[in-house]
Amino acid sequence: MLKAFVSLGCSCSYSSLFFTRHSQPRTHPRRFSISFSHHYPPSSKLMDSSSDYSPGNVQSIKFCQWCGGTTKHEIPEGEERLRAICASCGKIAYQNPKMVVGCLIEHDNKILLCKRNIEPSFGLWTLPAGYLEIGESAMEGAIRETREEANADVEVISPFAQLDIPLIGQTYVIFLARLKKPHFSPGPESSECQLFSLDEIPFDSLSFSSMVVTLSLYVEDMKTGKPKFHYGTINKRPGTSPSDILAYTLDHHMQS
Amino acid sequence: MLKAFVSLGCSCSYSSLFFTRHSQPRTHPRRFSISFSHHYPPSSKLMDSSSDYSPGNVQSIKFCQWCGGTTKHEIPEGEERLRAICASCGKIAYQNPKMVVGCLIEHDNKILLCKRNIEPSFGLWTLPAGYLEIGESAMEGAIRETREEANADVEVISPFAQLDIPLIGQTYVIFLARLKKPHFSPGPESSECQLFSLDEIPFDSLSFSSMVVTLSLYVEDMKTGKPKFHYGTINKRPGTSPSDILAYTLDHHMQS
Repeated sequence: MLKAFVSLGCSCSYSSLFFTRHSQPRTHPRRFSISFSHHYPPSSKLMDSSSDYSPGNVQSIKFCQWCGGTTKHEIPEGEERLRAICASCGKIAYQNPKMVVGCLIEHDNKILLCKRNIEPSFGLWTLPAGYLEIGESAMEGAIRETREEANADVEVISPFAQLDIPLIGQTYVIFLARLKKPHFSPGPESSECQLFSLDEIPFDSLSFSSMVVTLSLYVEDMKTGKPKFHYGTINKRPGTSPSDILAYTLDHHMQS
Repeated sequence: MLKAFVSLGCSCSYSSLFFTRHSQPRTHPRRFSISFSHHYPPSSKLMDSSSDYSPGNVQSIKFCQWCGGTTKHEIPEGEERLRAICASCGKIAYQNPKMVVGCLIEHDNKILLCKRNIEPSFGLWTLPAGYLEIGESAMEGAIRETREEANADVEVISPFAQLDIPLIGQTYVIFLARLKKPHFSPGPESSECQLFSLDEIPFDSLSFSSMVVTLSLYVEDMKTGKPKFHYGTINKRPGTSPSDILAYTLDHHMQS
């Protein structure tokens, strides 16, 4: 079992959460990951290959998506960041962080996890989650991802966590939810869906640091009372492997 | 004064918040807005002109930003949404919602507002807020925006609200904060910064629906006790003007 040292702050202070054991390396992020892709060359496929989303790598934007002109890379007047600016029409291709939305589903004092049937982290366990789409709320997105990955119809109970991962330009927004009917089965992206009691959660074979943090916070909340809302930042620990999902700190942790 | 009918749900249920008075029309969103831009032709400049961000309008993406090839607009295998796919290299230009981050700053039982010195909503009052950048957490982004717009150095106390606006592909993340030192002054994007007591908040001249909702929730919280964390979705009321910032409902409101 994972030995976790969890120090949770109150809503008026910050705390840090970290682990003492390292997992085996993880490979090939595709839909989303916390694998800190820009430490690796593109050939390692550690970038988000479905979207070619390389967070902050403005230099990779070489053409204007609206007029086809070539871009220059400059800091616009009044700004502080390098942007890709079309040399023809002058439009700026802004890059911003993406939201990953998902559900932590409670049922009969257990929680529902999906075993990933796709890369990254093929064969490892995750909460149903994925990128938020334009036109849907975070709650709607989390419900959709749960339907897609676990064939489960859920209703959201409350927001549970916002976890920013600045290094890869992602923010996880996780909701507590319950099954409307006690039915679930693996969707195309899952090989298995299973209910786990709190002491059965497979911390040694989770897919992403965001999942380790979310489930650790949930387990702690359930030990001490009812779930709270958590905000925090997941940062990579300096000097550790980019693919080690336990080599992180949870910084600026606040709970409501 | 604005007559607001606020019905706040508990953490296990949803509620709706709406207003009875309409404000004057708002014009020219630039950095962010809730003006439902795609109801208007581009010539009205109601689109986010700084980024040409037209939420969900995948048809506007005509070229691949990585190789310069022309795009086709199709639903990729295994997906359900129309995407812009490069006909040359096959890469998909995913569009996702953007996060706007900001601070609700408490000082001496008052809150700090900035009068906008830029479009959209020039001359109207707002909390310091702006788009989250890649490489920063939501909290860091909110602190940065406050420094830029109010020359104020703040520390975050707790998360206060996540408000999704699906119609325009934006999510507002607002933190409660306090001034580290009692100093503030207008930055380049503000013409004025001022502390307001709760009964002085200029609800008749706020800039965006997100600000109306955030400040209404805060006022209600302070009347009944201390601030909570709120999640909700801001939707446009059918049949109302896209530029009417009070013509909305707050749906699926949950608080922790």
